[in-house]
Amino acid sequence: MTQARRSRGRPPAGDGHDRRTALVETARRQFAAKGFAGASLRSIAAEAGVDPSLVNHYFGDKQGLLVATLELPIDPLAKIRSALAGGTDGLGERLVRTFLSSWDPHREVFATMARTGLGSADPAAAPVAEVARAVLVGSLLEVLEGPDAELRAALVGSQVVGLGLLRYVAVVEPLASAGVEEVVALVGPALQRLVDG
Amino acid sequence: MTQARRSRGRPPAGDGHDRRTALVETARRQFAAKGFAGASLRSIAAEAGVDPSLVNHYFGDKQGLLVATLELPIDPLAKIRSALAGGTDGLGERLVRTFLSSWDPHREVFATMARTGLGSADPAAAPVAEVARAVLVGSLLEVLEGPDAELRAALVGSQVVGLGLLRYVAVVEPLASAGVEEVVALVGPALQRLVDG
Repeated sequence: MTQARRSRGRPPAGDGHDRRTALVETARRQFAAKGFAGASLRSIAAEAGVDPSLVNHYFGDKQGLLVATLELPIDPLAKIRSALAGGTDGLGERLVRTFLSSWDPHREVFATMARTGLGSADPAAAPVAEVARAVLVGSLLEVLEGPDAELRAALVGSQVVGLGLLRYVAVVEPLASAGVEEVVALVGPALQRLVDG
Repeated sequence: MTQARRSRGRPPAGDGHDRRTALVETARRQFAAKGFAGASLRSIAAEAGVDPSLVNHYFGDKQGLLVATLELPIDPLAKIRSALAGGTDGLGERLVRTFLSSWDPHREVFATMARTGLGSADPAAAPVAEVARAVLVGSLLEVLEGPDAELRAALVGSQVVGLGLLRYVAVVEPLASAGVEEVVALVGPALQRLVDG
């Protein structure tokens, strides 16, 4: 987590760190209670006692706030957007390479996150499902084109999630120990088919 | 579960149903305690007090015994083997079609199985991981060829598992409600790339 910057020219209602923390803790509670779609930025800001505009200031947008509630060792939204920045050309390989090189150093965190997110039948207690939906699939939708872009975005997301599950959670060999570029060379072109449609 | 047939010409040590049940219950306990690889058919049969040859009689093999311990509404081993029976030609599409048409009528069972299997950090309590490994990946290995066949089998497994997770567990739309053939048309060719290598 980067240190929150003070919002300029706004009368401080508590210091920046306090307000950022209040937003994250309130958002975590409201996302759990109402789901990602059900909790509005306005209601989160109101309960946290801060101005709604501070959400954009600290987190960029609602997806960024969701990611902040997970306290992850990496910023998946920034990683995905860097992979997407090059457009759809070669996107399959870039997605796999970005995903594996981001999570390989944090295998245990991924496994814990997956278990926490999937271990409950209560969708409201499933932040991983929300991340898969809002962050991964939502970001892909910004670049995929065509009439079935939403379905293909979800399918690309499913393949990336499945890769993480067998590599980090179920630890199925030889996938768990395979080199990143070996997996990229095999899965990249398969994902590219879904990207291109 | 089909009714167990009596083994012919063998002195009955309890009736067939009792012996089959004893094997399943003992196997479930030993798989949980020692893992799939660690629990031998000999030790399971010994603890159940039945002849080891009855495992083959009732379940075909050790994978079949594992599947029986899960008490699933479908026989995934038989389903996968029917998809594999046609060889590698068109296997990508057949795998996706078989997987979806098998589990679509049992979405809740798949979700519960995934949550149970992934919800624990103890690998011994993760039958789903064992099924992914022993049944799905193991069966694929019987038909895939080439130097990286094991890695490609694990990757095909990861894509199928990921599909099930977003469709049945995280319920990400429009994937959760998409028609089987629509998904087959998109994912089949992507899987086929991994099948062919």
